[in-house]
Amino acid sequence: MAGLIEPLQRLANQFARLPSIGPKSAQRLAFHVLSMSAEQVNALADAIVAAKQQVHFCSICGMFTDQQTCDICRDPRRDSGVICVVKDPKDVLAMERAREFHGQYHVLHGVIAPMSGVGPDDIRIRELLQRLEGGTVREVILATNPDVEGDVTAMYLAQLIKPLGIKVSRIAHGVPIGGELEYTDDITLSKALEGRREL
Amino acid sequence: MAGLIEPLQRLANQFARLPSIGPKSAQRLAFHVLSMSAEQVNALADAIVAAKQQVHFCSICGMFTDQQTCDICRDPRRDSGVICVVKDPKDVLAMERAREFHGQYHVLHGVIAPMSGVGPDDIRIRELLQRLEGGTVREVILATNPDVEGDVTAMYLAQLIKPLGIKVSRIAHGVPIGGELEYTDDITLSKALEGRREL
Repeated sequence: MAGLIEPLQRLANQFARLPSIGPKSAQRLAFHVLSMSAEQVNALADAIVAAKQQVHFCSICGMFTDQQTCDICRDPRRDSGVICVVKDPKDVLAMERAREFHGQYHVLHGVIAPMSGVGPDDIRIRELLQRLEGGTVREVILATNPDVEGDVTAMYLAQLIKPLGIKVSRIAHGVPIGGELEYTDDITLSKALEGRREL
Repeated sequence: MAGLIEPLQRLANQFARLPSIGPKSAQRLAFHVLSMSAEQVNALADAIVAAKQQVHFCSICGMFTDQQTCDICRDPRRDSGVICVVKDPKDVLAMERAREFHGQYHVLHGVIAPMSGVGPDDIRIRELLQRLEGGTVREVILATNPDVEGDVTAMYLAQLIKPLGIKVSRIAHGVPIGGELEYTDDITLSKALEGRREL
């Protein structure tokens, strides 16, 4: 016997394609599936398919949702006069954990990265400018990561938005330079929001 | 928004139930599923369900198989006169990687562990004795892990099998004491087989 039988090997291969799961872990996970009840196995498979089928982007802010618009955009208690611009849906979750921001979000789904061929038209900048046309937005907080591409994107957006007479701010450098928003602790994120400065 | 939307949270919860995947990793995996194509997502879900449905135990040795009997038990080139007794199907894979053993296996699916309430009748000892009744088996190699429970199980089996006039051996202590067969390198496993001594 060269190795695993086909259905097991196929499952291990599938697990190994997921991020941060190596071949050894993938094999262990495949064995674990065999030890689960048929009910548990179906629940896992169903959750995978359902998440992919039911989750898409909010038509306003670009956050994940299983409705037409997301919970935050639909919440009348959120201040629609302040928009916090982030790179990824995961960054919205990080900001929400800080419990300091009560406005709405705009997810760019990327940052300007000329080296990777990502220009301003490849991320959701057009949609952001359309949201600003209504005249209700008083301030745009730029919360892209404090790395080169995040800073470039923030500067680019500031130059576009300031002429519209809207206040533009950047979250403070409480977020460690070179770090990722997703991994920043709640207190640091709170401080970063408090200490934001106008651009 | 308290956290993830329902389909994403449900998927993250499912991933978090798998071994060595914490809540943070589970969330990352759930997000990753959204970034996969519908085709890739279905392939993953199908592999999970298919593995559980198609894989069961070999009716002879107890190894995983998607047939009535496993590849090794059906292979006429394997010496049916020597049976290597292991705790888990994973241990069969480890032994096979060593490429030193050319007999057949018997998977106990556990070891005697009085503290956990696992007695001789709870593992596949009866099935092993039935295989020995045919008279073709010349030697039984006990390859349970070199820990307390593995040693106890080996001693118990030796006392049962020796009166049948069959040679009983234990793999040598090339396997590090307290270690797990599954994580032992191929050379150490080869040495352990070569240096086995009669009990």
